[in-house]
Amino acid sequence: MKVLIVYAHPEPRSLNGALRNFAVDRLQSAGHEVIVSDLYAMGWKAVVDSADFLNHETGQPLKVEAASKRAYEAEAQSADIAAEQRKLFWADVLILQFPMWWFSMPAILKGWVDRVYAYGLAYGVGEHSDRRWGDRYGEGTFKGKRAMLIVTTGGWASHYSERGVNGRMEDLLFPINHGVLYYPGFDVLPPYVLYRTGKYDDARHRQTLAELGERLDTLATTAPIPYRMQNGGDYEIPSMELKEALSAGRQGLDIHLA
Amino acid sequence: MKVLIVYAHPEPRSLNGALRNFAVDRLQSAGHEVIVSDLYAMGWKAVVDSADFLNHETGQPLKVEAASKRAYEAEAQSADIAAEQRKLFWADVLILQFPMWWFSMPAILKGWVDRVYAYGLAYGVGEHSDRRWGDRYGEGTFKGKRAMLIVTTGGWASHYSERGVNGRMEDLLFPINHGVLYYPGFDVLPPYVLYRTGKYDDARHRQTLAELGERLDTLATTAPIPYRMQNGGDYEIPSMELKEALSAGRQGLDIHLA
Repeated sequence: MKVLIVYAHPEPRSLNGALRNFAVDRLQSAGHEVIVSDLYAMGWKAVVDSADFLNHETGQPLKVEAASKRAYEAEAQSADIAAEQRKLFWADVLILQFPMWWFSMPAILKGWVDRVYAYGLAYGVGEHSDRRWGDRYGEGTFKGKRAMLIVTTGGWASHYSERGVNGRMEDLLFPINHGVLYYPGFDVLPPYVLYRTGKYDDARHRQTLAELGERLDTLATTAPIPYRMQNGGDYEIPSMELKEALSAGRQGLDIHLA
Repeated sequence: MKVLIVYAHPEPRSLNGALRNFAVDRLQSAGHEVIVSDLYAMGWKAVVDSADFLNHETGQPLKVEAASKRAYEAEAQSADIAAEQRKLFWADVLILQFPMWWFSMPAILKGWVDRVYAYGLAYGVGEHSDRRWGDRYGEGTFKGKRAMLIVTTGGWASHYSERGVNGRMEDLLFPINHGVLYYPGFDVLPPYVLYRTGKYDDARHRQTLAELGERLDTLATTAPIPYRMQNGGDYEIPSMELKEALSAGRQGLDIHLA
């Protein structure tokens, strides 16, 4: 398989750097092709602005959605954006690796999503009718590809558990797993999350490599998170509310699991 | 009151720009002092790196948490970070205004959080014992101050409703409201969210200004989201799991509401 790792950590001599290197070696040893987008090393520009859209008319108001659509259609995006999009088309599997900062991605990775996910590529795809509401959530450009997060955090696992004070990790990651990955069509594998990185030793590192290695070995076969397809009959159109009979009486984001 | 608006939109001639100007006028007319951090206009650097920490030794590995702690303690942070922190100390109310991009903040605003929220200021505050687990979630540096989001999105309200396909807006914003604002001590007011900005006309704009104006007029009195205090007896220490008897049988992030 072809694996794209988008990696967002400022220090290569870090635990994240070690895990990234391990992942690349492990995947290559298994015969996979790997490309790493090392955002810090690339000096990735994090901020959407008019320079992203080469056909944006100077002095005109920047309407991001419209500008993105025009630039994507005309192949007039800045070169760094187009290069990342080519990697996405190339890849069978997308891995986003990052330390959790303030319960989400570091800004540099959010800026990769904001800029690379063009209108016509990741959103604004497909037809709207009484039976479909665009190609998103289980359909879309990246349908057939898989994606997975590798996340590190200093917090304890129990603080992120079902009733942990930080909020459940699955819920904190929902905007990314469901909103960034499932939206444009990826099958999203359960994330690999490493907790309490401040208390880390050789024994834990061996365990981490064993667990992460297992996850990398099974990228092709691990069952994805069973998010409900938007256009599969579970949601009313166009209100896009889950039909009454489904997940009845339940609360929380898990209602969107089939 | 003193109000800090941190504003993240690339185009001043936009709906967000109009709402920002409206908010400033409305607050000033009511006698409040207002400072706007217009992140795009400031050319805000979104990405944490070693340049943020003036006392970081060149060539040494960058450990972000430790570097942030050392720089904050020694007053050796880059000037742009220190300036934003002074504004936070000055303010009685913090407003974050942004268009929702990919179910979260634009990268430039995430980078404001990542960089301004230093160790010793926003996290790593307070003592850990069998009765307390640091000053966070209802306690901390910003206790006594209030915060509120102003968010715009192209999506329909029903798509973000209790059972909407995007996930419920309250849950999507939990990493920000609870994780970014409540964590260092802010009382967090319900967000003002404007939906379906692609279908917008004068009538809707009048309604928006009336609603937003009302929210701005009542910043001091609106009841905050009733998140549970971490050290108030509702969570086990140190596992930080919600005690069994509380929100029993319920699922989802609302278990963290008192």
